[in-house]
This record gives sequence, structure tokens and C-alpha cells, in this order.
Amino acid sequence: MRISELSRTSGVPVPTIKYYLREGLLPSGERTGRNQADYGDEHLRRLKLVRALVDVGGLSIAAVGEVIGVLETSDIVTHQVLGVVQRSMGPDEPPAADPDAHAEVLDFLARRGWERMADDPAVQSLASVLSTARKLGHLKFAGQLDAYAEASVGIARQDLDYVLLHSQVDDVLESMVIATVLGDAALVALRRLAQRDASARLLGEE
Amino acid sequence: MRISELSRTSGVPVPTIKYYLREGLLPSGERTGRNQADYGDEHLRRLKLVRALVDVGGLSIAAVGEVIGVLETSDIVTHQVLGVVQRSMGPDEPPAADPDAHAEVLDFLARRGWERMADDPAVQSLASVLSTARKLGHLKFAGQLDAYAEASVGIARQDLDYVLLHSQVDDVLESMVIATVLGDAALVALRRLAQRDASARLLGEE
Repeated sequence: MRISELSRTSGVPVPTIKYYLREGLLPSGERTGRNQADYGDEHLRRLKLVRALVDVGGLSIAAVGEVIGVLETSDIVTHQVLGVVQRSMGPDEPPAADPDAHAEVLDFLARRGWERMADDPAVQSLASVLSTARKLGHLKFAGQLDAYAEASVGIARQDLDYVLLHSQVDDVLESMVIATVLGDAALVALRRLAQRDASARLLGEE
Repeated sequence: MRISELSRTSGVPVPTIKYYLREGLLPSGERTGRNQADYGDEHLRRLKLVRALVDVGGLSIAAVGEVIGVLETSDIVTHQVLGVVQRSMGPDEPPAADPDAHAEVLDFLARRGWERMADDPAVQSLASVLSTARKLGHLKFAGQLDAYAEASVGIARQDLDYVLLHSQVDDVLESMVIATVLGDAALVALRRLAQRDASARLLGEE
């Protein structure tokens, strides 16, 4: 299809598609003339993924580029890819944590047997969260981590089952991105609903 | 203390404190002279909460104003407040969902007995997530919701226990805000760690 049809079908304006082509987020079409190229279903599919990462995931164009780069590398094993995909989707730079909060996180990792992940950027995020809680006088908030982690293990098992429904490498990687980005948004929404439900039951009827 | 000391103790620059005062995020100090006012511990505490909402929660100044407004209203019951706090912390406007995705979410609410929350903004977010998944050809992603919801119920129970550790109305409301904002950040980080752990176990060693 021509770029105009790709735009109509995807709902993405032509100038935006050209921008994605220049940034390498979308592979070039097959050249069919001096100023013309032909695009296929794989372009349509990629375009939808880019829009999902930007609109739902709130990723910057640079972060989308990193994720796409990983999607296009098929000679690294699935497990390694997960780390790269997650890093490019993590928060930019969490505020620095105080030493007490950092020590609390290391204790927590030890309790779960997760010490080998001490260098993961997610550990910095956790330390930063606890650091803020301490500054606000919420010293007991650290006690939430164990129950949160327990719930997260169930979620992660489910995420992995979903990813493993897909057998092609491309599909596995794409489903990781989808499960991570859409899963974050879904969990935030579900936690709100579950809180409202629990609060209605415990604190009174609506 | 003077505004300069409030700034030193909190680490928030004087012009920023003055901005918060103008926006009503911080109550005025006690006037002690023509151009001087005295600030107390409650100002320091409020200032830290505002910084946490902005830095950790990523809230806009307008959204912080809404949350503070709720914190200062003590004649509504705790359960009603939860809804107001959550709404001011929700995503601005989720992309519109297609009717199929919306129907999937209503089915899901019926399965859980959560129909009475059909108007909650979180339901719009869920529909928007499923809509995006469908557009990307991930029709099976909707199947994740039940397991995610199960995990969220455990998390919400824990959140509520935390909130109920506090007995003063002010403290209850503040702890709701803290648990919601910091809890979101903590859960995103823990889900990443749990995924990496599950993936290392299932797909191979690091």
C-alpha cells in the first residue's frame, strides 16, 4: 500500500509516519518509484506498536527506538532481552535515596532471595520510594514491600505465561513489551477498583 | 521559623515555597512583621508532602491543589474521600476505547461482582488498555485481567491495613495519598524484579 493508505488504515498522519521513518522506528518501504514506496502489513503492525508505546506507555521517541532496536535483534536469548526492554521502559532517573532506605531495600532483597538483582534499576526506584516515605515520616511504609512482592510474584508468573503463549521470537518480544506497558496501566486501574471495593466493605456502604 | 530556615530544612528553594503559598498548597505563616512570617512544623510537613506528590507521584500543581483541598476537608467520611483522592491522581484522559473492549471490561466487572463501579474512571482506563491490546492483535490480553485483579485484591487489603494504622483524619488521608502514589511506584518496580526472577528460573540462568 502507499503511505497515504498506511495513514488512513492506521489513523496516523502522514507527516508522523515520515518522522518515524526518519527516526528508524519504522523500516523503509519497498521503493517503487522516484518518490514512492510500498508498505505492507508488517509496517501497519509496527506502526500500531509504536503508537501503543507512545500513547499507552508514555515512552519518549528515544525510548521507543531502544525497544524497537531490541525487537529487531534476534540473536540474544529471551531472558536477556527482558532486562533491556524493561530498562528502556523504566523511569528516567529516580531521585537519590538515603542510606537507611537503601539498607532497607537490601534487607528486603535478602529476605526474598533476590540479592543477585541488587544492581537492577528497579532496586534504585524502590530505594527512592522508601527514602521519600521516610522523609514524610512514614517509616512503616517499608513493611508494605513484602506483601506487594508476594502479589507481584503472582502477577509475574501470569505475565510469563502470557509471553510463552507466543512461539515466534518476534512475537515473544512484542508480547513482553505489551504485557509490561499495558500491564502497568491495567494494574494501576485494578488496584484503584480493589481499594474502593475493600474500603466500601470495611468502612461503610456507598 | 523564618521562610529561609523552612527552605534550608526542607531543601525547597524560597521562590518555590512562595509559589506554593500563592497557589494555596501551603497555608500562610503567622505574620510577625511587615514582610515577615513565622512557619511551623506543620508547614515543613506539608511541604514534604507537596514535594512527594510532585516528584514521586508526578502530579501537576493543579492536581496537588485538589488533593490538598481534600486533605483540608474533614467533614466527609473516609470512604468517600478515597474516591476523590484517587480521581485527582488518575491519568488525565485515557484514549477512547472501542465498544468490544468496553464490553469485555463490563463482563470482567460482572465476574468479580464489581458492577457498581462501572462509572469509575479506572474502568475507562481498563477499557482503553484492552482496546489498545485488541488493535495490536493481542486479543488474549483481556484474559490477564482476572489474575491481575486477584493480585490487586491482596494489595488493596494491605493498603487499607496500612491506612487504618492511622487514627487521626488528617493522618488517614495523608497515608492514603502516600500509599497510593508511593505504592504505584513500588509495585511497578517489584513487578519488574519478580518478572526477571521468574524469567531466570523458567528460561535459563543469568
